Amino acid sequence: MVRTILVIGAGKSTSYLLDYILKKSKEENLHLKIGDLRPEHIPTEFTSHANCTAFALDIFNDVERKKAVSEASIVISMLPASLHIKVAEDCIQFKKHLITASYVSKELEALDGEAKKNGLVFMNEIGLDPGIDHMSAMEVIDRIRNKGGKMLLFESFTGGLVAPESDSNLWNYKFTWNPRNVVLAGQGGVAKFIQEGTYKYIPYQKLFRRTEFMNIAGYGTFEAYANRDSLKYREAYGLQDVLTLYRGTMRRVGFSKAWQMFVILGMTDDSYTIENSEGMSYREFVNLFLPYSPTDSVELKLRHYLKIDQDDIMWGKLVELNLFDPQKKIPLKNASPAQVLQYILEDNWTLKEHEKDMIVMYHKFGYELNGEKKQIDANMVVIGENRTYTAMSKTVGLPVAIATLQILNGKISTPGVQIPIKEEVYAPILSELKSHGIHFKEYDVPYLGYNPDSVAS
Amino acid sequence: MVRTILVIGAGKSTSYLLDYILKKSKEENLHLKIGDLRPEHIPTEFTSHANCTAFALDIFNDVERKKAVSEASIVISMLPASLHIKVAEDCIQFKKHLITASYVSKELEALDGEAKKNGLVFMNEIGLDPGIDHMSAMEVIDRIRNKGGKMLLFESFTGGLVAPESDSNLWNYKFTWNPRNVVLAGQGGVAKFIQEGTYKYIPYQKLFRRTEFMNIAGYGTFEAYANRDSLKYREAYGLQDVLTLYRGTMRRVGFSKAWQMFVILGMTDDSYTIENSEGMSYREFVNLFLPYSPTDSVELKLRHYLKIDQDDIMWGKLVELNLFDPQKKIPLKNASPAQVLQYILEDNWTLKEHEKDMIVMYHKFGYELNGEKKQIDANMVVIGENRTYTAMSKTVGLPVAIATLQILNGKISTPGVQIPIKEEVYAPILSELKSHGIHFKEYDVPYLGYNPDSVAS
Repeated sequence: MVRTILVIGAGKSTSYLLDYILKKSKEENLHLKIGDLRPEHIPTEFTSHANCTAFALDIFNDVERKKAVSEASIVISMLPASLHIKVAEDCIQFKKHLITASYVSKELEALDGEAKKNGLVFMNEIGLDPGIDHMSAMEVIDRIRNKGGKMLLFESFTGGLVAPESDSNLWNYKFTWNPRNVVLAGQGGVAKFIQEGTYKYIPYQKLFRRTEFMNIAGYGTFEAYANRDSLKYREAYGLQDVLTLYRGTMRRVGFSKAWQMFVILGMTDDSYTIENSEGMSYREFVNLFLPYSPTDSVELKLRHYLKIDQDDIMWGKLVELNLFDPQKKIPLKNASPAQVLQYILEDNWTLKEHEKDMIVMYHKFGYELNGEKKQIDANMVVIGENRTYTAMSKTVGLPVAIATLQILNGKISTPGVQIPIKEEVYAPILSELKSHGIHFKEYDVPYLGYNPDSVAS
Repeated sequence: MVRTILVIGAGKSTSYLLDYILKKSKEENLHLKIGDLRPEHIPTEFTSHANCTAFALDIFNDVERKKAVSEASIVISMLPASLHIKVAEDCIQFKKHLITASYVSKELEALDGEAKKNGLVFMNEIGLDPGIDHMSAMEVIDRIRNKGGKMLLFESFTGGLVAPESDSNLWNYKFTWNPRNVVLAGQGGVAKFIQEGTYKYIPYQKLFRRTEFMNIAGYGTFEAYANRDSLKYREAYGLQDVLTLYRGTMRRVGFSKAWQMFVILGMTDDSYTIENSEGMSYREFVNLFLPYSPTDSVELKLRHYLKIDQDDIMWGKLVELNLFDPQKKIPLKNASPAQVLQYILEDNWTLKEHEKDMIVMYHKFGYELNGEKKQIDANMVVIGENRTYTAMSKTVGLPVAIATLQILNGKISTPGVQIPIKEEVYAPILSELKSHGIHFKEYDVPYLGYNPDSVAS
């Protein structure tokens, strides 16, 4: 009997997901149904496949949505996170398993009892970050614990970057995901974490100056700034007693220090709109944040304001973005500074069709075993193929696809609203991801505790 | 016939207000009734006066409150701003004039029609700032306009400071008003203003580094940082076409640059609570915001983090606050960084009984008259007598008191919800304030436009 996999929402990140399901469709007897508000935007390489049907679906239309869910064998929601709940409620009603790559919302969490009662797997956070980070971390943590080790330190970093071969600007960065999230990164609350048993707090105004460095063999040095939510998975991972718990976002070295210029100028602020933003030049935009002068140039005012020396490459990073151009105009009406900045950055940092992105992930596991302190560092690098088959799409889509088939085939069966931190879940998925080139390299390194300068103490 | 003035709420700032009314009580045939939640806290020098009655009033008790309002000839509300509305509704019901020193809320503004219909004066923003700033500015602006002048520039600055004779710390600052407001100053939105026809925006992270200086003869140099609301009275003052509109808060030189240390560290953040704040030492509090080090001192980490040179007096300002003391403890449970900082500052910056505060106000009026550009600078300095009879209490309380008597005597009679920007209102009040030593000195200065370096262009 043919099993129908319903995918709701076919955004840019779904290419690998759809591809995987269709490639497995013959041997696994699958039919892929894609419900999307605009099915005409789904590439024909998918829709022309014999085992694929795409149809128009407005998820706010209860009748249409319920019909689609009721006819499916299993449901994948790739909608924006806030929209999963409608689909989830239908899945309870029609007794279907559900897979999403999003954070578990409170509304979704509240369905845990119903899901368990009905024997339904509601698997979430099974993309890249969250997703591969959970699975790869728990695989190592469980291994350490099974040997009798005690966790002392856990640090975890992820970055969506441009591949070295497509890296062509001074920021060593291009957008490979939602640009708005990049512009607003770090806002909305203090970054909180634990270092050697002490709570630490970094305010937004210092976040991008508190990076630390890490090396990945063959790829050079990266930096990371702290996420807001370093303590988020403390209980889920069973790390209540570790001395150091830190999660961060990876960038190429020098990005964060340069980004700090936008923060200090006030260009990342999304809380108000600029007067007369439409038609304003890039240069006028910059001047909004600088003191008035009857005579001095915007350039010198900015150099002085941010103390940028003559020989500082930070300056080149600004010039490269055409920030001082009086001809380039902003077409946005009533825009916030963050929206204008995003527009200017997209003008410069958009991947070209043939360009490749890169996903990097880095974990540090400090532990004590038989009275000895040890550390494992693990890292993963995935390079995309082009602007459509991105490393981001691959690392988000494949875990979702693999989990879906595992659940459909009853190999992952523990019911309830969950994230992939149990061996039953992560072991088969990590194993299959490896065959797709998604895997971690591990290194035994000396345990130094949290020690930013790597000084043996 | 005796007229009853009802004062609701007798906080610290009401000493001059109560004193003024009682001193006038015989010649003006007044009885002062003070309704307060804790009347026992009102100094006996007032309550023992023959023409004064103090009584317990819970303003949430509708019966009590309405009775008090109905029996009064006129009502002054010195409650926190959000509580005026209940009193105002009663004043409509019982047809009483109302005076407050607070900003006009939307709820209060909505009573304008009712107030006018009943011939009632609802006078607000008639303290210091807002209050004396409105009156003193409009007096000069009206004078310029009456001569046929056209306003080009308006800048206005106010500060509540410590008097030179009581100034005994490196910050040249003590709390003379609500300490919480000082700690949170500048938060909650970008500072927006107009300089030479261009909008300018200063984010919180740069606010205290964008000060400008001003001199007051006999009192030396002050600095001012921008208020959020520079454009707030643009319409009310009729300044829609001016090239420069700027409002700010005055401090002694160097305060803001030092305050920036707290901002950058993240100590002014009120959006989250610190883990285990109770019993934490001042030193541990500082260390929350600094990177971990297995060996380095909190002192050196902070010097390095904020780039404080060996010979920089900024360092002395921190030491003076005992910030590195491991013995001094914070007694607050679940406190935000801002609450802890406030505690530490109050430990150092509280006025002693005999110490004096100082109010400074500075206006700049640029205008064009007969084709010539001109400027008037005006400043006011008021020194307090001691911790009870403060300059703050005098400059807030006297305008309220004087306005109340003017309204009671029918000299100010235009009805409606209003602020003191009409000549009918400001002229008699400013005139009487002068007899109490509250007055502006004016100087004709060259008009340079907004020109922070005072360079003739």
